[in-house]
Amino acid sequence: MIALFTDFGVQGPYIGQMKAVLYDLAPGKPVVDLFADAPVGNPKASAYLLAAYAAWFPERTVFLCVVDPGVGGARPALVVEADGRQYVGPGNGLFELIRRRARETRCWEIDWRPGRLSASFHGRDLFAPVAAMLARGDEPPGRPCDDGVDRRPDWPDDLAEIVYVDHFGNAMTGMRAAMLLPDARLSAGERVLERATTFSDRPPGVAFWYENSNGLAEIAVNQGRADRDLDLSIGAPVAIVS
Amino acid sequence: MIALFTDFGVQGPYIGQMKAVLYDLAPGKPVVDLFADAPVGNPKASAYLLAAYAAWFPERTVFLCVVDPGVGGARPALVVEADGRQYVGPGNGLFELIRRRARETRCWEIDWRPGRLSASFHGRDLFAPVAAMLARGDEPPGRPCDDGVDRRPDWPDDLAEIVYVDHFGNAMTGMRAAMLLPDARLSAGERVLERATTFSDRPPGVAFWYENSNGLAEIAVNQGRADRDLDLSIGAPVAIVS
Amino acid sequence: MIALFTDFGVQGPYIGQMKAVLYDLAPGKPVVDLFADAPVGNPKASAYLLAAYAAWFPERTVFLCVVDPGVGGARPALVVEADGRQYVGPGNGLFELIRRRARETRCWEIDWRPGRLSASFHGRDLFAPVAAMLARGDEPPGRPCDDGVDRRPDWPDDLAEIVYVDHFGNAMTGMRAAMLLPDARLSAGERVLERATTFSDRPPGVAFWYENSNGLAEIAVNQGRADRDLDLSIGAPVAIVS
Repeated sequence: MIALFTDFGVQGPYIGQMKAVLYDLAPGKPVVDLFADAPVGNPKASAYLLAAYAAWFPERTVFLCVVDPGVGGARPALVVEADGRQYVGPGNGLFELIRRRARETRCWEIDWRPGRLSASFHGRDLFAPVAAMLARGDEPPGRPCDDGVDRRPDWPDDLAEIVYVDHFGNAMTGMRAAMLLPDARLSAGERVLERATTFSDRPPGVAFWYENSNGLAEIAVNQGRADRDLDLSIGAPVAIVS
Repeated sequence: MIALFTDFGVQGPYIGQMKAVLYDLAPGKPVVDLFADAPVGNPKASAYLLAAYAAWFPERTVFLCVVDPGVGGARPALVVEADGRQYVGPGNGLFELIRRRARETRCWEIDWRPGRLSASFHGRDLFAPVAAMLARGDEPPGRPCDDGVDRRPDWPDDLAEIVYVDHFGNAMTGMRAAMLLPDARLSAGERVLERATTFSDRPPGVAFWYENSNGLAEIAVNQGRADRDLDLSIGAPVAIVS
Repeated sequence: MIALFTDFGVQGPYIGQMKAVLYDLAPGKPVVDLFADAPVGNPKASAYLLAAYAAWFPERTVFLCVVDPGVGGARPALVVEADGRQYVGPGNGLFELIRRRARETRCWEIDWRPGRLSASFHGRDLFAPVAAMLARGDEPPGRPCDDGVDRRPDWPDDLAEIVYVDHFGNAMTGMRAAMLLPDARLSAGERVLERATTFSDRPPGVAFWYENSNGLAEIAVNQGRADRDLDLSIGAPVAIVS
């Protein structure tokens, strides 16, 4: 299975063009859209989101990951293997949390180049063909790289910020709920939030936080919208108050 | 074929995670997105929309339906079979109109549980695996339930409200056009609307209603947007004035 | 492969219903979404967008194209074959640039009709079944038409307007970059724009134009949004100032 993680948006031609490459070069492999609306141009916030959601997928899933504000510049192109899953994308920190949390990890710097490489769409021209190769079982088309390549030691283990807001207005943080004390309270948007188990736990209109279905601490309002009620968007700070 | 009907939104990870389960457990079965933007947290409006659109699909289609504001609470998990099609989802009235309009219908309460059931995403953890079982031809993993389970006798046969607004600004009602007199006029947004056969029937800028391609009475403006011009959104009332 | 090009929007049931027809009638053929958000009700702007993006796809791709404000009226239904690719859709100019730029082209007027043809959704009822026939290798179900049918000789070879705005706020023009002088400057939104090779070429916040990954001249702002900063939307005029 190939899973797509990008900031391209659900509209427009970009996702379709990448899928055309995948269907052409890896026929019969299912392709699923994981996120098409990862934090735009923000590899750091995206890295925490990717690490939380990728862990849910079965081994041998290939992740085609493109949050790439530096496309056309000097950042390397990487394949990362971590705990049996493979990741293809730009070397800009996007895989930092995947690598940090993995039991074992390997890295390749892609040196294969397509016949035609556009300056602005490496997702289609470079990363999608490489993802297709990996999905077919080929070796990563590059040279093994040192584990120190493209690391971000200064990034925290959990990110105390909003990293995603969903269709319901729920705001995901970059913090794993398992790393918080069971009775931890969070502060966001000038509100202090208690923990709940699920939505029906809380009266309508009350804001709370809970462990979402992928293990992140997420801020929600039962029958309401946390993004509007607490004025939250990607990048908004969150604090642990107890 | 498996058809998805949810209020998850077209963005975000939820649809992709459900598809990952379906491709894994029912390989080779095509999956189509019917609605990813059904009325949010509104099983009643959704029930009229689902009944209108499901009837168009061929027999043996499996519908994976998740409009589930009570997830994590006490509502049952159901499989409904109606006129050769199968439906999986929460027992909160979502299947009321499917059942009411079917020539024959059966119902099962799902008692199968996955190894890991999150509190907030039964679509992925419970309903998707069951939909995959049904698509593979397995029996519903539960016990037959009485036809009285999860019925809503107080809901009308047709709903005089807006149940969906599309990309063009057209506003679908929950009323079947075939239940209205041929010269019926509708009132919505303080306007009285005549019936037209299709868009090119009416001058640009004029609001009208017509029978849409799935049989619902739908309000539109030729070369305009009914939602803006008449201030219509989901839940807005509609009346029959003649 | 079947590629979808429509103005239906990414939400709602329309794309899913067309895919249900395609999976049913052409099982096993991959279907990709190229554009679901082509310029709404605007076959002219759509024609320039389609021509730029279709040329990237491999031979034998079938394009199912529905930007069809005249649905239910008198416009013909066409199959166009151009340089080894096939196009199905309404005869309203949508294929004008495809035909004008092709080395060789043929045209058929579709005279096949389905058992049930709705007045408002020919994409599902007429064009999708025909696209499935073509994807299976069938002959176009119609009679060859003269090359003069549905031509727009008064449309320019390149359109000096915005034809698409993407998720990042980048604004595509209907002009091929290869038709502009290397040092051409463009004027849009009361700004004069220099050419750049790619995003990282320009300082953050500076607006520029560049040749996008499909050969169109596109207006962008590094780490900004051209649509907001320059007040650009579909139809906004663009001028060549040197």
